[in-house]
Amino acid sequence: MAEPLRIALAGLGTVGAGVIRLLDANRELITRRAGREIAIVAVSARDRTKDRGVDLSRFAWEDDMTAMAARGDVDVVVELVGGSDGPALTLARNAIRDGKALVTANKAMIAHHGLSLAKEAETAGVALKFEAAVAGGIPVIKGLREGAAANAIERIYGILNGTCNYILSTMEDTGRDFGDVLGDAQRLGYAESDPTFDIEGIDAAHKLSILASIAFGAELDFANVDTTGISALRAADIAQAESLGYVIRLIGLAETDQGGGGQTRLFQRVQPCLVPYGHPLAHVDGPTNAVVTEGNFSGRLLFQGAGAGDGPTASAVVADLIDIARGEIGAAFSVPVDELEKLEPATSGHRMGRRYIRFAVNDRPGVLAEITAAMRDAGVSIESLLQKGRQTEEGEVLVAIVTHEGPESAVVKALDLLDGSPSLTAPPLVMQLLGG
Amino acid sequence: MAEPLRIALAGLGTVGAGVIRLLDANRELITRRAGREIAIVAVSARDRTKDRGVDLSRFAWEDDMTAMAARGDVDVVVELVGGSDGPALTLARNAIRDGKALVTANKAMIAHHGLSLAKEAETAGVALKFEAAVAGGIPVIKGLREGAAANAIERIYGILNGTCNYILSTMEDTGRDFGDVLGDAQRLGYAESDPTFDIEGIDAAHKLSILASIAFGAELDFANVDTTGISALRAADIAQAESLGYVIRLIGLAETDQGGGGQTRLFQRVQPCLVPYGHPLAHVDGPTNAVVTEGNFSGRLLFQGAGAGDGPTASAVVADLIDIARGEIGAAFSVPVDELEKLEPATSGHRMGRRYIRFAVNDRPGVLAEITAAMRDAGVSIESLLQKGRQTEEGEVLVAIVTHEGPESAVVKALDLLDGSPSLTAPPLVMQLLGG
Repeated sequence: MAEPLRIALAGLGTVGAGVIRLLDANRELITRRAGREIAIVAVSARDRTKDRGVDLSRFAWEDDMTAMAARGDVDVVVELVGGSDGPALTLARNAIRDGKALVTANKAMIAHHGLSLAKEAETAGVALKFEAAVAGGIPVIKGLREGAAANAIERIYGILNGTCNYILSTMEDTGRDFGDVLGDAQRLGYAESDPTFDIEGIDAAHKLSILASIAFGAELDFANVDTTGISALRAADIAQAESLGYVIRLIGLAETDQGGGGQTRLFQRVQPCLVPYGHPLAHVDGPTNAVVTEGNFSGRLLFQGAGAGDGPTASAVVADLIDIARGEIGAAFSVPVDELEKLEPATSGHRMGRRYIRFAVNDRPGVLAEITAAMRDAGVSIESLLQKGRQTEEGEVLVAIVTHEGPESAVVKALDLLDGSPSLTAPPLVMQLLGG
Repeated sequence: MAEPLRIALAGLGTVGAGVIRLLDANRELITRRAGREIAIVAVSARDRTKDRGVDLSRFAWEDDMTAMAARGDVDVVVELVGGSDGPALTLARNAIRDGKALVTANKAMIAHHGLSLAKEAETAGVALKFEAAVAGGIPVIKGLREGAAANAIERIYGILNGTCNYILSTMEDTGRDFGDVLGDAQRLGYAESDPTFDIEGIDAAHKLSILASIAFGAELDFANVDTTGISALRAADIAQAESLGYVIRLIGLAETDQGGGGQTRLFQRVQPCLVPYGHPLAHVDGPTNAVVTEGNFSGRLLFQGAGAGDGPTASAVVADLIDIARGEIGAAFSVPVDELEKLEPATSGHRMGRRYIRFAVNDRPGVLAEITAAMRDAGVSIESLLQKGRQTEEGEVLVAIVTHEGPESAVVKALDLLDGSPSLTAPPLVMQLLGG
């Protein structure tokens, strides 16, 4: 049997403690599958005295986690601290420069600095792995890099944020409004006390940009993910969608298209979408994640599982460690950084599709005429229009339109025509209908 | 760039031709991802003259496919001939003994000879890979061996045969009977002219035994898969299940339990099951496959996609080739053959669960009393009993019982008590209710 793979673990929150518990619980089978022992030798966290339910006395303790990068008795640094910059990034860079492999669950850091870290890892000849950064315990990065490796990926999309999916499926089940359900999610630990990253789609955008880079062999481009969260959704939207045969899910979607000069461009968007009942993503409830890849030979593949939580995330972290122990490393983004294409971001005006547009309006004569005239003038063809009869407390009514297939630019134009109209009591909400 | 990986391809049916088309279509990206070219150098099939829609003139031709094993210009033999024994097995053994890697989509050969082939591959120091043998294009072997590698797998189950799933979901949609739908499936190419392997569950059992070996680190044991197909199902069963909130799917399931002496045993069964609407497998329609793994840290992971077809199967074959090109090989069954445990087969009498039991009976007084008395005497607790009022042409009526949770042995005993009763016009049909 080979020498143990020696791990320094930075960050002892729920995931860090989960990694320790997992390595304890499954030690024997992991050693067998990895071909060698995976042994934590040092740990670091902010508070040494906190009870985490695991015995830390076996490990060396570092008060300054960045010091772990310089330890001579460590092969791999596992970074579970979080934050796109700051100590996590310092630790990551130092570890790689010191010739150590880096395993991380830090989606923000990879979304912002993944390319430069991968480049440094290539130079140092060490592994950089981040399966846990996307979709928790679901081995979707591995699925893309290896399982679907023979395919040109045509589209990748999915449910990438468990907090939003919990909120949306609970709104669906209970008919309650967004704010209510968010409060419950916070009490239950499904949402952070500051939920912005989750509910505004930023966390999903981090993950989507990582998946898109691997799927399309493109330089990671988080800055150009067009991102809308779920905070503008109302219970009435969910009910409306349901009456049309759809559920609402926050979908991250990436695909490539051809620009005017024939160049390949990258489209990346996180947005609440209407998902038809017949689609597998319509049945993904609670804090579950799911990713669909469409390859030119594989067809549609679906990967589904727990998107967060200590056990699933630890499972992904240790899967990366087993890969490293086996010597199965490969390029972080599937191909070497220099071979990744720099794709310009795709515009969206030409994108064809059907859309749900919801207006909150004052209940007075002429409002419907104003809206439908704008649609006509912009060339948006209306398939159905539903006005909810009941006023809200504020005297507003909701008007929902489902369009026929058409270009996105027409919808944008229609909304421009209505911009500033005193009839509207809130900005219109536009959602794509996800194709079957 | 490293030297090309040189392939000999045996078998030019739809999958073989698909592999050639895939390597042509995606050549550039595969070379980039694999780090070297993957180049077919020789091919073999029964008929050299048949038009397969691909240009074979580029490749050396071997009339005798087993001769490919001895070619000096080949690194990997891809076996797509099929059949558990015969030429496929001869080719596989010869190729491995000659120091070549073997990639195969042949589930029957792996189910019957996988262990001895893996042992020979270890001795020869070559790769043996068979992602395409299970669930077509879905990277489920990779998902188990690597993605879920950190987990003790508690249960693995899924829809492993696309033909059966097509038939069952079509019966569900149309209300038509088994024989009718099978005939259509044969005309549409979803079922073979001799459909026995598919509809009797043998193909699913092949795949289940391969998954179980990898999931549990156990010696492959196809002979002890308890296998029931779908040919006894009637339209009325599907309708009955639907009225109870279930769909019927052919489920392969494997898990371990503890025998009387505390030893670990392996339970493997392929059987039509009632799947509750809320379960992700209830929404798997048509010729799709799906596999669920339940790991002690990952929780439930679902892998879903096309279970057959030239494109998806070729995608899995070439994924294996890319792994080999990258040098990412590992043990065929996740751990070396000598470390696989020899688990004895689990008995099923103690297994707790709810069951659907359907009787076809003569419509005459006393039949229900006879059945319910047998249930009582065997200790089977009845949750609901439905008698279809309408007689079939043969004068029989169907009685469906759903039991409360209880041991399987009680149901077996009840059916023993009824065995030979002149009231029954066909053997009773028993299906498990899949837990949520």
